[in-house]
Amino acid sequence: MTKKNTATSNQQQLMDKIVSLCKRRGFIFQSSEIYGGINACWDYGPLGVELKNNIKQAWWRAMVYERDDIEGLDAAILMHPKVWEASGHVENFTDPLVDCKSCKLRFRADQIPEENLKLKKCPECGGELTEPRKFNLMFKTFMGPVEDEAHVVYLRPETAQGIYVNFENVYVSMRRKIPFGIAQIGKAFRNEITPGNFIFRTREFEQMEMQYFVRPGTDMEWFEKWREERFKWYLRIGIKPEKLRFHQHGPDELAHYASAAYDIQFEFPFGWQELEGIHNRTDYDLSRHQQYSGKDLSYFDDEIGQKYIPYIIETSAGCDRTLLAVLVNAYDEEDTGKEIRTVLRLHPFLAPIKAAVLPLVNRENMPQIAWEIYKSLKPHFKVFYDDSGSIGRRYRRQDEIGTPFCFTVDSQTLQDGTVTVRDRDTMKQERIHKSEVLDFLKEKITF
Amino acid sequence: MTKKNTATSNQQQLMDKIVSLCKRRGFIFQSSEIYGGINACWDYGPLGVELKNNIKQAWWRAMVYERDDIEGLDAAILMHPKVWEASGHVENFTDPLVDCKSCKLRFRADQIPEENLKLKKCPECGGELTEPRKFNLMFKTFMGPVEDEAHVVYLRPETAQGIYVNFENVYVSMRRKIPFGIAQIGKAFRNEITPGNFIFRTREFEQMEMQYFVRPGTDMEWFEKWREERFKWYLRIGIKPEKLRFHQHGPDELAHYASAAYDIQFEFPFGWQELEGIHNRTDYDLSRHQQYSGKDLSYFDDEIGQKYIPYIIETSAGCDRTLLAVLVNAYDEEDTGKEIRTVLRLHPFLAPIKAAVLPLVNRENMPQIAWEIYKSLKPHFKVFYDDSGSIGRRYRRQDEIGTPFCFTVDSQTLQDGTVTVRDRDTMKQERIHKSEVLDFLKEKITF
Repeated sequence: MTKKNTATSNQQQLMDKIVSLCKRRGFIFQSSEIYGGINACWDYGPLGVELKNNIKQAWWRAMVYERDDIEGLDAAILMHPKVWEASGHVENFTDPLVDCKSCKLRFRADQIPEENLKLKKCPECGGELTEPRKFNLMFKTFMGPVEDEAHVVYLRPETAQGIYVNFENVYVSMRRKIPFGIAQIGKAFRNEITPGNFIFRTREFEQMEMQYFVRPGTDMEWFEKWREERFKWYLRIGIKPEKLRFHQHGPDELAHYASAAYDIQFEFPFGWQELEGIHNRTDYDLSRHQQYSGKDLSYFDDEIGQKYIPYIIETSAGCDRTLLAVLVNAYDEEDTGKEIRTVLRLHPFLAPIKAAVLPLVNRENMPQIAWEIYKSLKPHFKVFYDDSGSIGRRYRRQDEIGTPFCFTVDSQTLQDGTVTVRDRDTMKQERIHKSEVLDFLKEKITF
Repeated sequence: MTKKNTATSNQQQLMDKIVSLCKRRGFIFQSSEIYGGINACWDYGPLGVELKNNIKQAWWRAMVYERDDIEGLDAAILMHPKVWEASGHVENFTDPLVDCKSCKLRFRADQIPEENLKLKKCPECGGELTEPRKFNLMFKTFMGPVEDEAHVVYLRPETAQGIYVNFENVYVSMRRKIPFGIAQIGKAFRNEITPGNFIFRTREFEQMEMQYFVRPGTDMEWFEKWREERFKWYLRIGIKPEKLRFHQHGPDELAHYASAAYDIQFEFPFGWQELEGIHNRTDYDLSRHQQYSGKDLSYFDDEIGQKYIPYIIETSAGCDRTLLAVLVNAYDEEDTGKEIRTVLRLHPFLAPIKAAVLPLVNRENMPQIAWEIYKSLKPHFKVFYDDSGSIGRRYRRQDEIGTPFCFTVDSQTLQDGTVTVRDRDTMKQERIHKSEVLDFLKEKITF
């Protein structure tokens, strides 16, 4: 094997290990697995749902709670179909597809060899290909009992439009002045032709989007602020700086609505890929919704005595792919001299379980004391009680799911009331009094 | 007007007031309102999303964090279509519909006068009605680029099935033994023919469901435990006991999968209606999935040395209707002698904003001190700073959205460092030192 092939194969192995750990330890299961699965849909298991909720909370705290200029929103997935005409999705959110007339397979025209396209020959069987035609990536369904064109509604392909159509409702009800933003976390759906890479590209996914409304002319300044701000957030949740980079969209990459765009990319085992896009969407969105709805969506800026359609700076992050980045970033195999230990070096705020409480052995008073400590932590943190197997084995089980601390009750506890605190990353142990355990955790689990 | 009509009209007025407050103060907006709305879909505004998240958190804490026998899950909305054959939804989840051949209107056969049905005469125009036919309430869409029967998938009409198909994945990965439960919060979709009553019956809604797996023979015992447990939860989030009751399903009301069922009902302005169902689903679900998937879903119970299909006790709550019940329960108009004040008496844990910090006037050092207090609370709670308008008006604004406490910085603060704490419910004021504000709130905002 060449050096490059070895590297690729190592990276593939890494993905396989992560996928396997995710299933084995209850992070992520294939959706409808007992029925053979459903393509590109995944279910979050008991640890996965905690990790995902912690990521969402870290985003919501940074975007809504810690700031003074952003409101939250939770708009419905089903929206009026005109929204998607105004947004341009009905017309432009398409992939070019070709069919093979003989083997009936279907391909994305931009993903088969140019030669095949030119000769109109199927890359699989050599049969004749149809002309490329536009395939819309929105899932469509029918609202009400009649299945006809008049009753088509779409599953939203992005959460952003729910924010735009509520712009006026939000600024009026919350008495907001520009500049301000609206943040939203929610599901979106895209009928991708080629999903893949585990939870990276799926047909059902969750977005964390923020739309920031600004005075025209101040848009590039805010654009720059937001791209710095969002980059810092990934560092704050513990992503290694060398795994992150900006990718600036060149003129030919820019979407039709954007005047400037940067992606924040992460180095996945399958290459550098987008985690989040920061876009200067200009006044495109509100102008289009004004045009299609017939409602005046302009804003009167009393500071300058002018009425205008606000410009929008968008920060659009994928929650599932952030979760995958967090896992890849945290996954480590460490040679301890005796064995290879697998450890998820997750930020303590993101860890699904904050601490495990372990009686060294199931005798004397150790289980009772450990259970009391566990009970005292439970109202504050997601914690775990484990009394089965050797202590080393129990530590490894916690390492593998990223639990930052283990508190162990041993024979010394019976004498002086102290327990050991074992640190996941250093494996070092110190002793603290059992009455200090809650405060210790409170100090460590911060964001 | 008769007494009954007056009562009905008062109740209708109450609903109108709540709907209006929800829009005016940023709790709930009509979805896609600028396009004339979309029937039976609603968007949660800045305060609504906080209230909803707090309800979900109160449920998750009570069901997952505080207990030792329940795991969380977050399954995808799109599932393998066979799931809905196994569950019985493809066959049974239908309403009987009739069409008028002349005016083309469509009716639920069980909702038009019997006379019309018998004579096959349209209740609107007197035209001829078709025979009733089954209309399935699941939204259907197509996965992948081909729109044919082989590619139909459904938007899940309930979250429960996502739990059943993951039963084995969860108990194996989490090393669980029966009895244990799996809890999930998530969206579900039903193509209701007659949605209505604001967010009570909508086509897109959120469920909070828990499925508890037990040994056959212990099912009725667990059923009784769970219905008591769930009833208490509504009391714990502050619902008045006189507004809650059980409704036991008679033999003719029981769903095909249930051997026993109770609803927990709330007295809405439009009558007593279901908030949550508690069902003994027997071994119906796992048996059906075993049959349809061909996988062995039995469980080996090592305590009794027997293999069996577990029985399931389900607790299925509607998140949106719980939110509506919380609003109805909290809404109050109080005659203070000078005016009628509107106040939402929300449980402090549920309140969207936990406290407002107000400088009495915008001079001397008051705004600076108030801002410092606001900043010190922000990392811990959703709080609000308000310096505009008279103090009485500012208190009223907070009352109307249910903010439990207002901290006011006044001239005495400049001298001795104390601020007033105003209680939303009693309107009483006491003074505490500004350094005690955070601890005061921490003590009050508990669940």
